[in-house]
Amino acid sequence: MEFKISKDLIKELEQLIQQKDDQQLEVLLNDMHHADIAEILDELDFDEATYIFKVLDSEKTAEILLELEDDLRENILSRLSPKEIAEELDELDTDDAADIIAELSQSKKEEVISELEDVEHAKDIVDLLRYDEDTAGGLMGKELVKVNENWNVLTCIKEMRTQAENVSRVHSIYVVDDENRLKGRLSLKDLLTTSSKTQISDIYIKKVTSVKVDTEDVEVARIMQKYDLEAIPVTDEMGRLVGRITIDDIVDVIKDEADKDYQMAAGISQDVEADDSILELTKARLPWLVLALLGGFISVKMLGLFEGAMQKHGELFFFTPLIAAMAGNVGVQSSAIIVQGLANNTLSGSLFNRLIKEISLSLLNGIILATILFLGSYFLLNADLRIGLTVTISLISVIIIASLIGTFIPLLLDKFGIDPALATGPFITTSNDICGILIYFSIAKLILGF
Amino acid sequence: MEFKISKDLIKELEQLIQQKDDQQLEVLLNDMHHADIAEILDELDFDEATYIFKVLDSEKTAEILLELEDDLRENILSRLSPKEIAEELDELDTDDAADIIAELSQSKKEEVISELEDVEHAKDIVDLLRYDEDTAGGLMGKELVKVNENWNVLTCIKEMRTQAENVSRVHSIYVVDDENRLKGRLSLKDLLTTSSKTQISDIYIKKVTSVKVDTEDVEVARIMQKYDLEAIPVTDEMGRLVGRITIDDIVDVIKDEADKDYQMAAGISQDVEADDSILELTKARLPWLVLALLGGFISVKMLGLFEGAMQKHGELFFFTPLIAAMAGNVGVQSSAIIVQGLANNTLSGSLFNRLIKEISLSLLNGIILATILFLGSYFLLNADLRIGLTVTISLISVIIIASLIGTFIPLLLDKFGIDPALATGPFITTSNDICGILIYFSIAKLILGF
Repeated sequence: MEFKISKDLIKELEQLIQQKDDQQLEVLLNDMHHADIAEILDELDFDEATYIFKVLDSEKTAEILLELEDDLRENILSRLSPKEIAEELDELDTDDAADIIAELSQSKKEEVISELEDVEHAKDIVDLLRYDEDTAGGLMGKELVKVNENWNVLTCIKEMRTQAENVSRVHSIYVVDDENRLKGRLSLKDLLTTSSKTQISDIYIKKVTSVKVDTEDVEVARIMQKYDLEAIPVTDEMGRLVGRITIDDIVDVIKDEADKDYQMAAGISQDVEADDSILELTKARLPWLVLALLGGFISVKMLGLFEGAMQKHGELFFFTPLIAAMAGNVGVQSSAIIVQGLANNTLSGSLFNRLIKEISLSLLNGIILATILFLGSYFLLNADLRIGLTVTISLISVIIIASLIGTFIPLLLDKFGIDPALATGPFITTSNDICGILIYFSIAKLILGF
Repeated sequence: MEFKISKDLIKELEQLIQQKDDQQLEVLLNDMHHADIAEILDELDFDEATYIFKVLDSEKTAEILLELEDDLRENILSRLSPKEIAEELDELDTDDAADIIAELSQSKKEEVISELEDVEHAKDIVDLLRYDEDTAGGLMGKELVKVNENWNVLTCIKEMRTQAENVSRVHSIYVVDDENRLKGRLSLKDLLTTSSKTQISDIYIKKVTSVKVDTEDVEVARIMQKYDLEAIPVTDEMGRLVGRITIDDIVDVIKDEADKDYQMAAGISQDVEADDSILELTKARLPWLVLALLGGFISVKMLGLFEGAMQKHGELFFFTPLIAAMAGNVGVQSSAIIVQGLANNTLSGSLFNRLIKEISLSLLNGIILATILFLGSYFLLNADLRIGLTVTISLISVIIIASLIGTFIPLLLDKFGIDPALATGPFITTSNDICGILIYFSIAKLILGF
């Protein structure tokens, strides 16, 4: 049932390209889904991919263009004339066309737009270009089916047939007034089950959830998820219906958002992929590493303060990486849970309750781990009993402090409107390393008195 | 436009509950969306929430039940009789009803099923219960619109009206043969724009992507995302149409999958939320911490091997947390990029190319960081020049090794069919801590010769 790329297929295609056997290529690819062809092109080199791209007709290639990986799309677009690009865009929905135009240089952008054949389509695309890509305006498309509240079911169905010609998928039927202001929506079911003379104003659903053009994309995603919507209408400042957003675009937003939190937690500050350039990857990774390094300087300085202990209790220094690592791990766990809770809107209860809970939780974890550490240090590592006691007490303290830091720093950042995900990963591990070492040696000093 | 819970609203509701003013409660809540009411109930205590739940009618409460947080739903269900639960389920789509039944105890399950009024509905629900929840069968619902290939457009529209009565949203119209085998789908557009005598077999689209009942949920998600589908039909072993999966259920799968990778990277091994019980949170967090602790034992042992260096070069030990932290951070970054690449299917190119790239990348990062470290150790930390040189060379080596471990362990796990996300978080940081310390002291021994 499902399509799978095989090495044989790739080889066959490469041969056909070398032989310039366009006809056979078409036969082979014409029946395939555009998403499958895109997957194949991503496996070929740029020249081969472009060759195939030019063999296929624009109805197919337009859809393929959307599915390609960024660098291949960029490469192919750079080899197409403005007229050729315009032909692709004429086949696409306005939102997809606008996304592709937005990737072009300013001068090429204008040339491509002037080459678009369908003037209405061109107007819609240009209109979409002015919205920020992270807003509802940047996500929406212009293709929708709308009916006037003053029509009856018969006119409505007739009008819908015309409109549906330009709309690849009918998600919802929106109802507007004479001024194009969004009034509600029409259920397809009601339309199918009502007599043809019924007035639309009698059967339409007055409640419809919509967003404004400047609503942020993550907010749109939240609303569509909460209300289980497959499409949402977008209105302008005056409540006029200007577009619709479909769930497939929102799936990308949801996925990107979850991926972003994960990347932040791993100390990667921009949206990068394994196949990006070394420079881009360095730009995303280096800042956090520098931060961690500077934190490391502090830990070196701090350990230097306890140099006096080295003579009598050198063993203490063997345990620093262990204590620091535990502090880091606990902090990352706590912060991840809070960041996800904030992202998914599932945090409830007061700050005080959270404090009590976090302390109980880390006390429970801490006591179990400290017991293992105490037994381990005595039997496995043959440490001095007083040293064992020191590291054990330190571990419990460090775990409690680290989990509090991990819990409350993201909450604090969120309160001040800063992305709490910033406080996961290197930032949390570094500050917990430092705190952990300080607590450890302070307790050691108290117990061992050096 | 958008609903926001206010403290005033909560207070007002609590007062009305105390006064047992059911009428006013209904007035206040009846116009609200069920997702909003669920959000309100989550803010109240269990008794208050149950009170409101019983005031509202089952058409509304059934939908609310789906949106509640797990513990509140469990609590409310435990206070409802089998007959009351059955009334709720009669209002729900089969897949949602099956999900709720699956949460009940075995004995209650049977009682509830026997109380269901609509026999067809009950049969469908029971049928769904036998599928594993992580498969297409566990995700699918029975509500769909299907037509026979031998009908004409008129019969089809008439039949669809009847079927649509039981289907809250018409996603796709599926075409089957006399044996109920899935043959294709019908575009609503074609149906709207074709004359009523046309035979369905003449206009239906023969290509339709479907999944089998036992296809894994993440695979269903991948297919629906790849082909931009809003609903996908599910067939049994004999190709018969048995259900459909809609994109809103898949959004949850996609989000859960991304969240899971993030949680794994943070050392949380089960799907937990901040509001789960301390015991559940401990179960998810403790195993990774124990692993990290055992890794810590190894680092203690290893540092003990280099005790001889303490006399002459005690400073070396001040740098261990810094080296270990850098190794951990680099490893987490590398592994996160690979795990996301594997999850999103965006990794291409050979292993050898990836090796070259990862080495170049870490060499670039390493040299920049090592320069900062060298200057910092000399000017800020006043370290001995030979110590400075030692830590600098160690840092570059450690960064290269850590990034290789971070890159290739997930790839290796994936090759053996193990979830690569296991290799992020505590596992990677711990093994990189150990390697980092070993490399550091080995280089120190070479340079300083203790």
